[in-house]
Amino acid sequence: MPTLVLLRHGQSQWNLENRFTGWWDVDVTEQGEAEARAAGALMRDKSVDLDRVFTSVQKRAIRTANLALDAMDRIWLPMTKDWRLNERHYGGLTGLNKAETIAKVGEEQVKIWRRSFDVPPPPLEADSPYASLQQDRRYAGIDVPATESLKDTIARVLPYWEAEIAPCLKRGERVLIAAHGNSLRALEKHLSGISDADITGLEIPTGQPIVYELDDQLQRQDRYYLSER
Amino acid sequence: MPTLVLLRHGQSQWNLENRFTGWWDVDVTEQGEAEARAAGALMRDKSVDLDRVFTSVQKRAIRTANLALDAMDRIWLPMTKDWRLNERHYGGLTGLNKAETIAKVGEEQVKIWRRSFDVPPPPLEADSPYASLQQDRRYAGIDVPATESLKDTIARVLPYWEAEIAPCLKRGERVLIAAHGNSLRALEKHLSGISDADITGLEIPTGQPIVYELDDQLQRQDRYYLSER
Repeated sequence: MPTLVLLRHGQSQWNLENRFTGWWDVDVTEQGEAEARAAGALMRDKSVDLDRVFTSVQKRAIRTANLALDAMDRIWLPMTKDWRLNERHYGGLTGLNKAETIAKVGEEQVKIWRRSFDVPPPPLEADSPYASLQQDRRYAGIDVPATESLKDTIARVLPYWEAEIAPCLKRGERVLIAAHGNSLRALEKHLSGISDADITGLEIPTGQPIVYELDDQLQRQDRYYLSER
Repeated sequence: MPTLVLLRHGQSQWNLENRFTGWWDVDVTEQGEAEARAAGALMRDKSVDLDRVFTSVQKRAIRTANLALDAMDRIWLPMTKDWRLNERHYGGLTGLNKAETIAKVGEEQVKIWRRSFDVPPPPLEADSPYASLQQDRRYAGIDVPATESLKDTIARVLPYWEAEIAPCLKRGERVLIAAHGNSLRALEKHLSGISDADITGLEIPTGQPIVYELDDQLQRQDRYYLSER
C-alpha cells in the first residue's frame, strides 16, 4: 500500500522571531533540530519505514529531512530536492516581523495576505534587503516569482506532485515529503479534497509526521498524525 | 572548465580500530566529522564551488558529503547516492582486525589481499556476523558480490562514471564525489592513467579534497590536493 508521510520542518529561527520567511533560506533552531530528530525517532519506533524522500531547496526542510533520516538510520535513501516544494514566496513581506507589520498596515490587511487563497502580498522589491534571493544560483533557469498567493503555490506544487512524486507512490513506494506550511497545504488540499475557503485555515504543526495511507490510485484511505497512533 | 573534487570520507570507527570494513556500514568518528567539516571549509575558503554531488550508499561517505556541504552552505545541491561508489567489498575479511589477521594468516597473505590488483579476499560466508549486509534492503535488486578485488571494484565504478558522472562534467558542472579509498582509486587510475601495478600503492588520505581540472573531453589538465594551494 502506498504510504505518504508529510513533515513540516522543525522550528526555524524566523518562526521563533515571528517574521515572514517565504523563500529566504533560514535555518532551523536547536529546538527545530530536536523536533526533526524526534520525528525520525517516532517513525522508527512506529515502524514507518521509507523508500524515498522529497524536499525543497531550502535548508530548514533539507536539514529536517537529514536529521529525521539519521534518527531512522536511513541517510542512504534517495533524496530529491526541488524548488517546487519551497515555501510560498512571501514577496515584500519577506523578513518583516508579523507584529510590526500588523501595527503598520493593520490586522485586516495582514490577515488578507496570510489567509486569503488568491491574494498575493506586494512583490519583493529590488531595494529589499532580501532581494538577493531572486538571483540565488539555486534558482538559475527558473522564473523566480516576486510574490505568491497560496493559489500560486499550489499551481507549482501539484504539477511536481503529479510528475515526480505520484509515480513513485503508484509503484508502491513509501515516500516522505519534508517541506513547508504552504507547500504541504497544497498537498493536503489535493489529497483530502479541502475547499479553497477552508485550506487557508489548516494549520500544519512543525516536526509532526502526518501519514496518508493511499490506495493504488492514490485515493486517501486514512490520514493521521503519527504521534496519535 | 569541468572540475572534479574527490573526497575520501573522514576517519571511521573501524579505521580507528584498524578493522577491514568494506561494505559494512560503519559511521565516521568525531574526528571524521571534523575532517569532513574542515574539507568543506577549505573548499569554501579556496572558492571551489560545486554544482552536484555523488556519493555511495554508505553512511561514512554520505555523512562526509553532508557535513562538507553544510560548511559550504550548499546542502541544497543535488546529491545522488549509488552503491557503485561503495568501498571495495572485503568479503570474509569484513570486521576482522588487521593486526590479528596478520598474526593468523601471515603478513604476506594479508598483503596479497590488500595490495594485489585482482586477487579478492575469501568470500563473506553465511555464518559471518556481517553476513546480514548481503540482504540489506538498500541492495535490493543488486547482485551483491561476496568479495571484490580492486579490479572488480573498478569494473563497477567506471561504468557508473561513464554513464552518470562524466555527462555532468561534460556539461561543465563542478562535481564532488565523496567516496572510499578503493572506489576513488578506481577513478584516480582512470583519470591519471595509473598502471595496475602502481594503483594498489596509491594512498588516498581521509578528508582531503583532491581537485582534478579537466578539459572538455575530461582529459586531466591538473591534479592537486586543495590544501596545498
